[in-house]
Amino acid sequence: MKLRVALAQINPTVGDLRGNARLISGSVEGAKKSGAQVIVFPEMILTGYPVEDLALRASFQSASQAMITSVASEITEDIVAFVGYLETSPEGAPQNAVAVIHGGEVKARYVKRHLPNYGVFDEFRNFTAGRSSLIVRINEVDVAVAICEDIWHSLSDLALRRPGLVVVPNGSPYERNKDDVRLALVQQRAKEVNAPLAYVNMTGGQDDLVFDGDSIVVDKSGTLVARAKQFDDVVMVVDIDCAVATSEPDLVILLAPSQSSHAIEARIRERLSDEAEIWQALVVGLRDYIAKNGFTSVVLGLSGGIDSAVVAAIAIDAVGAQNVYGVALPSKYSSTHSLEDAQALADATGINFRTVSIEAMVDAFMAQLKLAGLAEENLQARVRGTTLMGISNAEGHIVLATGNKSELAVGYSTLYGDAVGGFAPIKDIYKTDVWALARWRNMQAIASGLMSPIPERSIVKEPSAELRPGQKDSDSLPDYLLLDQVLRLYVDQDHGYEILIKDGFDPELVARVITLVDRAEYKRRQYPPGTKVSMRAFGKDRRLPMTSGWRQS
Amino acid sequence: MKLRVALAQINPTVGDLRGNARLISGSVEGAKKSGAQVIVFPEMILTGYPVEDLALRASFQSASQAMITSVASEITEDIVAFVGYLETSPEGAPQNAVAVIHGGEVKARYVKRHLPNYGVFDEFRNFTAGRSSLIVRINEVDVAVAICEDIWHSLSDLALRRPGLVVVPNGSPYERNKDDVRLALVQQRAKEVNAPLAYVNMTGGQDDLVFDGDSIVVDKSGTLVARAKQFDDVVMVVDIDCAVATSEPDLVILLAPSQSSHAIEARIRERLSDEAEIWQALVVGLRDYIAKNGFTSVVLGLSGGIDSAVVAAIAIDAVGAQNVYGVALPSKYSSTHSLEDAQALADATGINFRTVSIEAMVDAFMAQLKLAGLAEENLQARVRGTTLMGISNAEGHIVLATGNKSELAVGYSTLYGDAVGGFAPIKDIYKTDVWALARWRNMQAIASGLMSPIPERSIVKEPSAELRPGQKDSDSLPDYLLLDQVLRLYVDQDHGYEILIKDGFDPELVARVITLVDRAEYKRRQYPPGTKVSMRAFGKDRRLPMTSGWRQS
Repeated sequence: MKLRVALAQINPTVGDLRGNARLISGSVEGAKKSGAQVIVFPEMILTGYPVEDLALRASFQSASQAMITSVASEITEDIVAFVGYLETSPEGAPQNAVAVIHGGEVKARYVKRHLPNYGVFDEFRNFTAGRSSLIVRINEVDVAVAICEDIWHSLSDLALRRPGLVVVPNGSPYERNKDDVRLALVQQRAKEVNAPLAYVNMTGGQDDLVFDGDSIVVDKSGTLVARAKQFDDVVMVVDIDCAVATSEPDLVILLAPSQSSHAIEARIRERLSDEAEIWQALVVGLRDYIAKNGFTSVVLGLSGGIDSAVVAAIAIDAVGAQNVYGVALPSKYSSTHSLEDAQALADATGINFRTVSIEAMVDAFMAQLKLAGLAEENLQARVRGTTLMGISNAEGHIVLATGNKSELAVGYSTLYGDAVGGFAPIKDIYKTDVWALARWRNMQAIASGLMSPIPERSIVKEPSAELRPGQKDSDSLPDYLLLDQVLRLYVDQDHGYEILIKDGFDPELVARVITLVDRAEYKRRQYPPGTKVSMRAFGKDRRLPMTSGWRQS
Repeated sequence: MKLRVALAQINPTVGDLRGNARLISGSVEGAKKSGAQVIVFPEMILTGYPVEDLALRASFQSASQAMITSVASEITEDIVAFVGYLETSPEGAPQNAVAVIHGGEVKARYVKRHLPNYGVFDEFRNFTAGRSSLIVRINEVDVAVAICEDIWHSLSDLALRRPGLVVVPNGSPYERNKDDVRLALVQQRAKEVNAPLAYVNMTGGQDDLVFDGDSIVVDKSGTLVARAKQFDDVVMVVDIDCAVATSEPDLVILLAPSQSSHAIEARIRERLSDEAEIWQALVVGLRDYIAKNGFTSVVLGLSGGIDSAVVAAIAIDAVGAQNVYGVALPSKYSSTHSLEDAQALADATGINFRTVSIEAMVDAFMAQLKLAGLAEENLQARVRGTTLMGISNAEGHIVLATGNKSELAVGYSTLYGDAVGGFAPIKDIYKTDVWALARWRNMQAIASGLMSPIPERSIVKEPSAELRPGQKDSDSLPDYLLLDQVLRLYVDQDHGYEILIKDGFDPELVARVITLVDRAEYKRRQYPPGTKVSMRAFGKDRRLPMTSGWRQS
């Protein structure tokens, strides 16, 4: 028989139980209007995800449980809702759970059985695992639940119970190319269980994570039936063909007749291109960090270079040009094209723009401190940082740091200088990808008949920090094309020195790069958060000691 | 029979395999001179501890295994060494292991069975647990091994095997009052197993952790036999009375006769007082962060207030007055006593001292930016931060941030201002404890006939950031006595809003304080590391989202 299932691909806010409850209620109402009999929400939708150590607080646990009761009270007899929340075990331990709600009550609970504790995940720290499967008969269909990591392990025990449908709430952060992995996994599990599977993921940003949705329905043969658009907040309703009375359910629910029954056509939305997907991740990650922290506008330094231009373009897409404040901060070492290129970006995009010369401030410091060399270079960066923070404090914009992953990796960044900011949108984007994204974004604009936001000269000119006369990044660093190749292997894939040599890189280059990376850990610890898009982002994804004598070469 | 056991309470460096191997060899030589038959090293002494995600790197795993073979090759027939290192399981997973070494070879391995994954620990992330016990007969004594967290769980399975001695390598970070907990635990386990127990812990600082040693030997009734002095690097040799041939060992080792057999008297060293213990933790934590990161000197701003005075005193005890550079950074809002008190500290202690007025720099910014209110206050703090970083860059001293836990908790600190620094020695010390430590340290000086380092007026005067005319901390914050009471419960013990009301605090005060704490998470994320001394330090001990709508009141 057909079960009409709504997949609520929505965007919660961590900790905002009341706001999330409203989102849930709104989604249920929408689903009912489409005649949905079942609605499935993402993992821990009520609390937001990940809640980190909030999970350990008794006050937060009881607030979650009070709120799930309140959410349940509004859910009628004609629909079953699978709602993720924070439960407490009889022994007092926090649990990542799903409530099965019908007719105003929580009728059953499922507790996540596999707790990821790698990468960005700390679930073994924050939760206690469940041990039981759950199958609920809804009318005649035996519906099983699995939560996120559960399906990354074998579902053979669930297969033995022969469910007619598996629903899977997820809090699965975006990573480049992860959508391919997800679909293959969902297909594999459907075949293993011999039942259709409805995979529901959330959207939106939470600190350094962003969730891309990508909710999926496959039939029991693994064939793709429906797929939601990435990053869209949407309740996708799908009629899923399910075998009936296949199992011995733990609970039976009979639905009151639903409101509507017009036919629904399942849609398989196209995947975004690699660049579009990353861009959208960066836009949503920034947009939500800003909005969920009560800001409405951003300020950033515009150097005329590629990094700040790309960050500005992301910010424009996130909050609108009228809410972006660019500041050119020329020093005596700034070339004329720097100011021209910053101005060109402002002209093309319509952002707010001003120029604040840092010379007088730098001179005031130099008169007192008589700095030279690197100390003088860093001083300029810090005067810029202090200027941006002053504007931020006075006008209320959040400061964006414009550093990219290549710089952050090798420590090519000044603490309290260019590193200041509440958020660092491109901290997980290597320099060569910054260029690629700039070109892609300009092409998008042109294809839509709009002005390209990023000045061509910002893309093609040689990178320079302009902190001393004639300085080029290539004075201190290998060519970015080469550097990024080594970094992708060393940082993202843990290739050690010897493997990198086998990979074909020059031993001296490898030694130099990995020493730079290892020594810059202390800088990264004080760097602002930024959206993770790679397999291995700096931050909680990669936890290394600052103090370390480990040198491979 | 008596087994002569050396407990190597020593200070490794994370990642420095070669240096740690030298430390191990030196300790073995020393132990042999005292006629020791067995030497027990702390947990993962070869790699240092905690290695965090270095554990996941194949290159680091194989280096550890190559180095343990090399260490083993130097260990002779007359002694057995228990040496902690990083092993790889047959399935390729990293393991927290102990090698049992004798006659040039690793004769057996024990893998830690209980992996802590709470507080500051991520061992479930970084290691795979062992599943077997190990008992090695050394001459006639059946010696069992347990590693750190293993003894925080029941040893009933080990008790069944009836060992004659249990040796326990540890990497147990210092926490206030933890020594009392440790002794009670060690006594309980000895009685459970009905065998003497030798508990060996490391010393020294590693990023935000410090290890206090506190190595302990108890007999099978739990009676304390020997205890090493906290924070001392020492190889403690103890004759331990053990029953013989009690078990069915996994391995038998016969020792060549040892070099010496003069009698050894076990000593039970006095515990340090609460203040002495905390002070020593702060000194060692700072000392090792400096030394292990290649610095020899520190620079800090001296405001004349209590926080910077205490940080200076800690730094003096850590690296010597001649390596401490104090800078007074007066503004137009600085009172005369501020400069006098900074000067008084410098005079009393002999540190390097200079005055850099920030007025000209602040004026240069104000001319360009026209800031007022909080923006102007923050500007002053940031000009100070930039000045200290300039001196650091030019002269090579590491900058110390002087913020305390009360300030950090409520966000009473300026990002990139007073928050700049490579290390923040008192970030885990509440303001009221800063005062207590200041008084204690002065008393220590007086008791030794020395000048007290901290000016009395710095202790007694009313706290002020002096960022505007007549400003006092109490304008923005509750009285520290009251504030710290709330913070100790909210931050360190997770008392939620309702419990704090039940604790007897004013609801308005509680609401105000916990809102301040919750909203300052983003500032703490960019704050420098500092030594953990409490049950719950800011940092990896307390992982909370920055973006959070969770408000209890």
